[in-house]
Amino acid sequence: MRVEWAGSGPELLVTIDRGGRTGLRAQLEEQLRMAIRTGRLAGGEPLPSSRELARTLGLSRGLVQDCYAQLQAEGYLTSRPGAATRVAATAVNRPAAPRPEPAAPAAVRHPVADFRHGVPDLGLAPREAWAWAVREVCRTAPNAAFDYDDAVGRRRLREVLASYLARVRAVAATPDDLIVCAGMQQALSLVVTALAGEGIGALAYEDPGSGAAVTELAAAAGLAAVPVPVDDDGLDVAALRRSGARAVLVTPAHQWPTGVVLTGSRRRELIAWARDCRGLIIEDDYDAEFRYDRDPVGSLQGLAPDCVVSLGTVSKSLTPALRLGWIVAPGRLHEALARGKRLADRGSPGLDQLALALLIESGRYDRHLRRARAEYAARRETLVAATARHAPHLRLTGLAAGFHAILHLPPGAAEDRIIEQAGRRGVGLYGMAPLHHRAANPPPRLILGFGNTPRRAIEAGLATVADLLR
Amino acid sequence: MRVEWAGSGPELLVTIDRGGRTGLRAQLEEQLRMAIRTGRLAGGEPLPSSRELARTLGLSRGLVQDCYAQLQAEGYLTSRPGAATRVAATAVNRPAAPRPEPAAPAAVRHPVADFRHGVPDLGLAPREAWAWAVREVCRTAPNAAFDYDDAVGRRRLREVLASYLARVRAVAATPDDLIVCAGMQQALSLVVTALAGEGIGALAYEDPGSGAAVTELAAAAGLAAVPVPVDDDGLDVAALRRSGARAVLVTPAHQWPTGVVLTGSRRRELIAWARDCRGLIIEDDYDAEFRYDRDPVGSLQGLAPDCVVSLGTVSKSLTPALRLGWIVAPGRLHEALARGKRLADRGSPGLDQLALALLIESGRYDRHLRRARAEYAARRETLVAATARHAPHLRLTGLAAGFHAILHLPPGAAEDRIIEQAGRRGVGLYGMAPLHHRAANPPPRLILGFGNTPRRAIEAGLATVADLLR
Repeated sequence: MRVEWAGSGPELLVTIDRGGRTGLRAQLEEQLRMAIRTGRLAGGEPLPSSRELARTLGLSRGLVQDCYAQLQAEGYLTSRPGAATRVAATAVNRPAAPRPEPAAPAAVRHPVADFRHGVPDLGLAPREAWAWAVREVCRTAPNAAFDYDDAVGRRRLREVLASYLARVRAVAATPDDLIVCAGMQQALSLVVTALAGEGIGALAYEDPGSGAAVTELAAAAGLAAVPVPVDDDGLDVAALRRSGARAVLVTPAHQWPTGVVLTGSRRRELIAWARDCRGLIIEDDYDAEFRYDRDPVGSLQGLAPDCVVSLGTVSKSLTPALRLGWIVAPGRLHEALARGKRLADRGSPGLDQLALALLIESGRYDRHLRRARAEYAARRETLVAATARHAPHLRLTGLAAGFHAILHLPPGAAEDRIIEQAGRRGVGLYGMAPLHHRAANPPPRLILGFGNTPRRAIEAGLATVADLLR
Repeated sequence: MRVEWAGSGPELLVTIDRGGRTGLRAQLEEQLRMAIRTGRLAGGEPLPSSRELARTLGLSRGLVQDCYAQLQAEGYLTSRPGAATRVAATAVNRPAAPRPEPAAPAAVRHPVADFRHGVPDLGLAPREAWAWAVREVCRTAPNAAFDYDDAVGRRRLREVLASYLARVRAVAATPDDLIVCAGMQQALSLVVTALAGEGIGALAYEDPGSGAAVTELAAAAGLAAVPVPVDDDGLDVAALRRSGARAVLVTPAHQWPTGVVLTGSRRRELIAWARDCRGLIIEDDYDAEFRYDRDPVGSLQGLAPDCVVSLGTVSKSLTPALRLGWIVAPGRLHEALARGKRLADRGSPGLDQLALALLIESGRYDRHLRRARAEYAARRETLVAATARHAPHLRLTGLAAGFHAILHLPPGAAEDRIIEQAGRRGVGLYGMAPLHHRAANPPPRLILGFGNTPRRAIEAGLATVADLLR
């Protein structure tokens, strides 16, 4: 139905659907709101009287009056005694600036094989176990579990994690040393903020490594980020000493990306460094659950709880979609970290925390890890065998733990070109060059992630790589 | 079994349990680690040879060698060719500083009634609906749902929220305008950081209001926080203009704590202010789901999407334990907010996001709200009736929405003293004085939260208050 306004403005099309699920008043209100927002009803424009509009639309006058009152309370309309209700001047001709279309995501498809790293087997995600744990929590938790809680995390989960980490990672921690957080990213973000509060001005990181991400995060907290080289024994502690930094981020269990395990003597040197400068070692214990040939190397934290902050996550062991992780920190950082977490988000989701605690306590977490470990071990063997078959002249290193390995290309091979050519053949490859920060001309190497790469794809992918190198 | 070390150190008690679930080597390793950590084995101390220890404990020599090698790799032991394996000097006599016992939480119990505010009825928490939604997500979501995702949130949830907020709150937003985050706290934290990035140096807040929390959060981002008074029409916009701040945090739907609804003309003034100074209005839409006498007043954001940031959460509508909320922001802030969220935690939990989307889509969210609204409405009536019965001379205001009201005490009554006396009688009361920032001598008022206060408790609590005022 077309409504002629009393003023000089255009007609307005109002459609009232009497059989619809939405109430008559809500329909009228919504259409007037939209007309005002989009500028079809201009600011200052007088509206028909409620009597007139009610008659035109076949509605009760009270309904139209209610509708006008509502829009007036919301600021869309104005009225003065004795004058017509008008469209408010504020509301008009200011449509939100159109958002530019987001750039199409780099939807690269790799139908043959994708050696993307840093992601576990998504097909193994613990669907049933997680649904079970959440249901149990919802069924049995006391009402208080649905309230806010201490920002550092649910007591129950911190207890379970402290004992689990002691058993599996030789971590030395009480529940009070633990802060539950949203995965590795938040763990690092809270830690760098706490470092800044300690007066630490620079954070060293491993080169090659996650320098770009670390630099961005450190800068947000006002810290400089300093690369320190990694050799076959892990981080070069002498170079760290020379850097002058008083904090360092390391991946001792399985250096990212080289896969080197930090040796026992380097561990001791590193701790001596931290004690000398009253510095802090931040241990990213990201891959420790998956070690194949022998037992995992215990955490650095257990050796020196006074100067090591250990960070863990379930992103690799369960799924990144849970966004749960933890920080084990020396006492001197605890207050700053707890405050940081409170300011950041007032604590991680309580139900998820209780579900994770239950998953670990019930043995389902370990069972899931065993299953995943067996699968990754099989893929690792496939990778080794496929390399031996298709490219026996190439070295494969960094296989002690985790789910990626380094394939050393022949000297002079062009990392970039091979990645690009493989992409055209449906094989997703990722090079190591972008993870170097100082090396002018690093040797050509590929990081072959096999966490989410099926065995058949590994085989086919290696064949393609070998073919391209021919 | 007691093991005599080759060196001068004390004996060490090693217990090997052959029937236990833990492997023999793990048992030995763990006991050596603990002995070293606790200083029972001192740094530099030589260990017995693997042959000797194996004989003493009745274990195979290979097992003891493996154990030594593991502890060496972890940095607990050192060995040099031709010399005895020794305890590393680093690992010793440096037990973590004992953490002071945390102060006992203020475990105030209020057996008669607790008028704590800001928390919904925990007994109404949607236990079954949430467990159902998580199970459905785990059962049906594609594998990709278990991967990392865009930090601004799952597309599905942003679509569902955009349409839900348009319907229920008259919010004008596309899914691209939404950022999913961890409740109101993270929403505010991300917004103040983005404001700082825009060169905005001061954030105004309502007085009385959440000034203490806002000031702490603003300071963390380098912003000053400026109180602006609230009167019976809501925020005093003329005072805001004089303050010079270019951003303001407001609670238009139900001012916290007075309960005043921001009038239509104040809404327009506020928007005019923002456009004049190219400032931003941050709308905390915290109580909007619960309005009793009439339809909720639409969001301020819908009226001026170009200068209003609207923040929402499920903490009141479902439970604070989910830690899920959202930001609807104008385009100019979007990039900074998305980057902030990525740096903060790389996105909120994906499974929870999908479960919330499903809850809304399936109609269970609305059904839950209807049930909760009916319960709160009944309590509100109980509160009004109990006040009329026990303290008819006292005014009760701010009842238009939400689940708290303001009880105006007689002039000259001592807010503090009454709260303390009520506490001793098992009634938890909370005063308004701490929420005032400039008023030297605010009138005595109580904030009576009834979100998590049963009807019977409301009745008994009011009787106590009346008795204390007698």
